Amino acid sequence: MNPVIIVGHGPAGISAAIYLKRAGITPLVIGKDAGALKDYQDPVENYYGFSSPVMGSFLIDSGVQQAKRLGIKVMHDAVLKITLKNDLFVLDTLQTQVQAKTVLLATGKTRKALDVSGFSSFKGKGISLCAMCDGYFYRGKRIAVVGSGRYMQSELSELAHLTDQITIFTDGKPLEVDVNHPVIESPIVRIGGDDRVRFVETQEGVHQIDGVFVAIGAPSSIAFASLLGIATSNGNVDVDEHFMTNIPGLFAAGDIVGGKLQIAKAVYDGMLAADGIRAYLKHKEKAPSGD
Amino acid sequence: MNPVIIVGHGPAGISAAIYLKRAGITPLVIGKDAGALKDYQDPVENYYGFSSPVMGSFLIDSGVQQAKRLGIKVMHDAVLKITLKNDLFVLDTLQTQVQAKTVLLATGKTRKALDVSGFSSFKGKGISLCAMCDGYFYRGKRIAVVGSGRYMQSELSELAHLTDQITIFTDGKPLEVDVNHPVIESPIVRIGGDDRVRFVETQEGVHQIDGVFVAIGAPSSIAFASLLGIATSNGNVDVDEHFMTNIPGLFAAGDIVGGKLQIAKAVYDGMLAADGIRAYLKHKEKAPSGD
Repeated sequence: MNPVIIVGHGPAGISAAIYLKRAGITPLVIGKDAGALKDYQDPVENYYGFSSPVMGSFLIDSGVQQAKRLGIKVMHDAVLKITLKNDLFVLDTLQTQVQAKTVLLATGKTRKALDVSGFSSFKGKGISLCAMCDGYFYRGKRIAVVGSGRYMQSELSELAHLTDQITIFTDGKPLEVDVNHPVIESPIVRIGGDDRVRFVETQEGVHQIDGVFVAIGAPSSIAFASLLGIATSNGNVDVDEHFMTNIPGLFAAGDIVGGKLQIAKAVYDGMLAADGIRAYLKHKEKAPSGD
Repeated sequence: MNPVIIVGHGPAGISAAIYLKRAGITPLVIGKDAGALKDYQDPVENYYGFSSPVMGSFLIDSGVQQAKRLGIKVMHDAVLKITLKNDLFVLDTLQTQVQAKTVLLATGKTRKALDVSGFSSFKGKGISLCAMCDGYFYRGKRIAVVGSGRYMQSELSELAHLTDQITIFTDGKPLEVDVNHPVIESPIVRIGGDDRVRFVETQEGVHQIDGVFVAIGAPSSIAFASLLGIATSNGNVDVDEHFMTNIPGLFAAGDIVGGKLQIAKAVYDGMLAADGIRAYLKHKEKAPSGD
């Protein structure tokens, strides 16, 4: 049993991992490739300690190496789903299923989920990032599910019982999984409509739909949050002073909790979250029966 | 006129300097050699971003280079005294005098001022680190002033009018300044007494005294604080949420304000203090007349 699974291998996640390890608790870190820091093209100049500017991707790699050197396992994988089962967190990833007593969400913030015209303006007006959260509103309706891999498949399974009018849009990518729905592989040109989404336009034509579920790559942090019923405000996960969300044992740190989107802040968050997790685990040990 | 002088070139000071510079305010940084991080012999393993452990001294040097590369002047000097004159801070250093609209104290914490037996037990019981704070209680008494350089001379000038029974102890160091008082250059073996200090023992003999003023190297952060009347609690400088002390325009960040004595925390403090200083300077510009 993992005492802690940290989702995200950026500054907040790795900083928490290091402090936990130093406190005698070995976390499992699961990180995927994307991330604000890795995507950021300009070198980092304002994080203390580097005499020359460093690329975000260099910093991410250094952090992962730092964690590994201390004996922390860093899995290169994507978490698709987090559920609570008998007081334990169950994490379904692309490759496996893992369990933990506590979870730290340090996934950062996805700045852009789908890079097509209309995405920003219709987000929340017919474009959803979470099937389990919003699927119900589209029962019997025409749904576009955007994605090509396991995460799309997972979202699809949440929607399939609600309507039989589902079309998969892979946005130019090859389909990686089997599905029993029509698939359009042509790249998406734009998403359009009036007060809400009415159509998806690909290079090959226009498709009338009532809702778009985006399930590219892996779920965003806010999608996780919604799934588990984590309280959020203005797109940030709410945490207490120990960086715990409203769900006992589930913590969050870094960009995902808001505040300054700075490495220095994420690293500090990680350190404090490690403290919070440590205290929580200690408390649980003392009072093991559903306390 | 300097908008900001930052005293200390460790993680908190340099982090603040970088963020100020990025915000269009060029600070002057004054740093001296000592510092908890530089003195720390084990490599740093828990500060995010370094794939291999780094020495504290390496980190300090990297930070200074980082600041200089961004066009920030880092003076290698020691601040002896900070005074307020007509709404401006005047800083006397070993080499010069500089003025600023705001000051950030990021001097860290001196872990040990004098490494002799009895220092810890008699600190506050006849051993003082601040002549201006405690000198008055020793008028007409026998005073030992420990030090050999400019800072000792500066402290001596605060005490000379209070008593004519002052002896300088250089603790084995060669005297670097002229003084009109007896000087004992023999290394100090211990400081002793009963409920308070009664004697200083050097390798050459025992000297009866009533009080010891330690003025080795440069003043500690708490000595600065006491001089200026900055509020402290439990040996930490009190600051508000903008990292400002009770003296308008005087800020403090890093170890000196307490909390976790960690690089990650100092760096984060520095970032927030830069914000606080920026807001303060902006406010001052709008309301220049003694507001």
